[in-house]
Amino acid sequence: MRTLNVSASRSYEIRIGAALTESGEAIRAATGAGKAVVVSDSNVAPLYLQAVLSSLHAAGVEAVGAVIPAGEASKCAEQYLQLMNFLIEEQITRSDALVALGGGVVGDLTGFTAATYLRGIAYVQIPTSLLAMVDSSVGGKTAIDLPGGKNLCGAFYQPWAVLCDPTVLDTLPADFYADGSAEVIKYGLLRDPELLELLAKNDREEIIYRSCTIKRDIVQQDEHDNGVRQLLNLGHTVGHAFEQHSNFALSHGRAVAAGMAVITRAAIAHGECDAAVLPALLQALEESGLPTEATAPLSALTTLLRADKKRKGDTITLVVPEKLGSCCLKKLPIDGLEDYLRPGF
Amino acid sequence: MRTLNVSASRSYEIRIGAALTESGEAIRAATGAGKAVVVSDSNVAPLYLQAVLSSLHAAGVEAVGAVIPAGEASKCAEQYLQLMNFLIEEQITRSDALVALGGGVVGDLTGFTAATYLRGIAYVQIPTSLLAMVDSSVGGKTAIDLPGGKNLCGAFYQPWAVLCDPTVLDTLPADFYADGSAEVIKYGLLRDPELLELLAKNDREEIIYRSCTIKRDIVQQDEHDNGVRQLLNLGHTVGHAFEQHSNFALSHGRAVAAGMAVITRAAIAHGECDAAVLPALLQALEESGLPTEATAPLSALTTLLRADKKRKGDTITLVVPEKLGSCCLKKLPIDGLEDYLRPGF
Repeated sequence: MRTLNVSASRSYEIRIGAALTESGEAIRAATGAGKAVVVSDSNVAPLYLQAVLSSLHAAGVEAVGAVIPAGEASKCAEQYLQLMNFLIEEQITRSDALVALGGGVVGDLTGFTAATYLRGIAYVQIPTSLLAMVDSSVGGKTAIDLPGGKNLCGAFYQPWAVLCDPTVLDTLPADFYADGSAEVIKYGLLRDPELLELLAKNDREEIIYRSCTIKRDIVQQDEHDNGVRQLLNLGHTVGHAFEQHSNFALSHGRAVAAGMAVITRAAIAHGECDAAVLPALLQALEESGLPTEATAPLSALTTLLRADKKRKGDTITLVVPEKLGSCCLKKLPIDGLEDYLRPGF
Repeated sequence: MRTLNVSASRSYEIRIGAALTESGEAIRAATGAGKAVVVSDSNVAPLYLQAVLSSLHAAGVEAVGAVIPAGEASKCAEQYLQLMNFLIEEQITRSDALVALGGGVVGDLTGFTAATYLRGIAYVQIPTSLLAMVDSSVGGKTAIDLPGGKNLCGAFYQPWAVLCDPTVLDTLPADFYADGSAEVIKYGLLRDPELLELLAKNDREEIIYRSCTIKRDIVQQDEHDNGVRQLLNLGHTVGHAFEQHSNFALSHGRAVAAGMAVITRAAIAHGECDAAVLPALLQALEESGLPTEATAPLSALTTLLRADKKRKGDTITLVVPEKLGSCCLKKLPIDGLEDYLRPGF
């Protein structure tokens, strides 16, 4: 097992290689919980919920499961309120804890519920998808979606621990694995080009460790997303618009992949990026079975781009690749965004 | 004007004597907002909303109002989501701000919305009731109610500034003023018995200043309610149960008043409190037109008391008066709570 320490507004450990069957003791040690509600979804629960509940019982923690329907649609206000009411029924108090056992949807919903139930109780992330392991479980961004857009309602709320068991990826469908690969490729472009090779070699533990290290370093510098953390949005401004435009038929990873291809092409066209980034990116995307082109025309995205959460007043900050392993933040007036992106489409 | 500095996870000023008609510049200075949504209720908006909007415009801040129905029923999930959607429609971004212009309901709902919209944007409290001025606007506790109980969903999220204009109390109905007086009497019991005399003399600015000073000192010591801040719950465990039992026909201040009378009688019966506290408390409550007796029998409160938000596992922490100006925290097993309270009824 390898351990990464995160020092943010809360300090906690990311444990990579922590066996799911031994998670109970780790949860107890991190939270001191007397009782835990393990939130999972209809895909993951049949595979792993019982193992986590049993491990909690063995560690002397009372535990019950709460299973939500799998899919992004569960990251909604109705599911959030339903979960809140379940916690009240179960008489969960400030000395108890939540556990998120699943991918990004389960993690974001559970984290936001933990952040706001009784003004905040403990929670632990047990990510079961590659995307959640390398991205959404680390760094304390929690949220639900609103009809107006993704993640519009949420909180910064760091977990008490993140427990990663890479062996659970054996049961992850290839499509979901590819989604996580998009975020790994993002880290490759941002900081560590070797990740592109590790991905080709499928060295999972090393991929997770290096990706989490990059995310950890960035989150520690800028927990609340006012500066350097915005680098993690590489491919996400256009990606979110693709995702929304498809009405979420397009997965987050695929949308981000297409977003990275678009912004890289645009940056090269504007002379801001080394042309060598594009073939390396496209090869990595192709090998992972991810899109390499825009998935919708620019003209269809106008309103969606203007409503981006990352907009501040009349400006938006884009993440622009410079060379392999290095990106920068570029502020644009919202009215100039389309012109900037056009060569990427 | 008198200013109090609060140093919590955010540092901010409480300005007592800040004219409502000059609030725009203070909001701009505290938040840097380009646009502000001023949330108010159907009682307060007709009196003061235009003054605040005009002052914001004069300070160069774009501003719109959002008016909710007056009353505790508005502190609900539906109103919260409606407000969220309004912010999206108004294209509010992370460089904009919310303003809470009203009493505790407006402040708590607006604060929780600010805490969670786009994972947190700036907000300023302009309390218009005595209760909000001396209690709910200071200290960053934000929340909405759920069907299972009051304030079950919320966040600790400090405001960017608190602007108190005591002259607006001239239009506050006597019943609402009495509600605030209950919290002032609480501060008298907790720390500063002279507040009981100031209340009789109706020295408003001094009452607000001293009450906010006590609250500020306690919040600075324990922002997240893990220790000394629990002292502020004097009268509140039983009070919340009275409030819920009446289905919120009983106001918060009246419920807390009855709660303080109950806990003081119980503490004296157990030999834990100087008997002189009771007549002083009862006189102050009577002079303010507040209840001096339990408003429901103990037998009706059992389930409500067990579901108290302040419960941790199988214990609950009660605030018990010792002598005038001094209280202590007493941990009780939840099963012993009724027996302890019985002599107070």
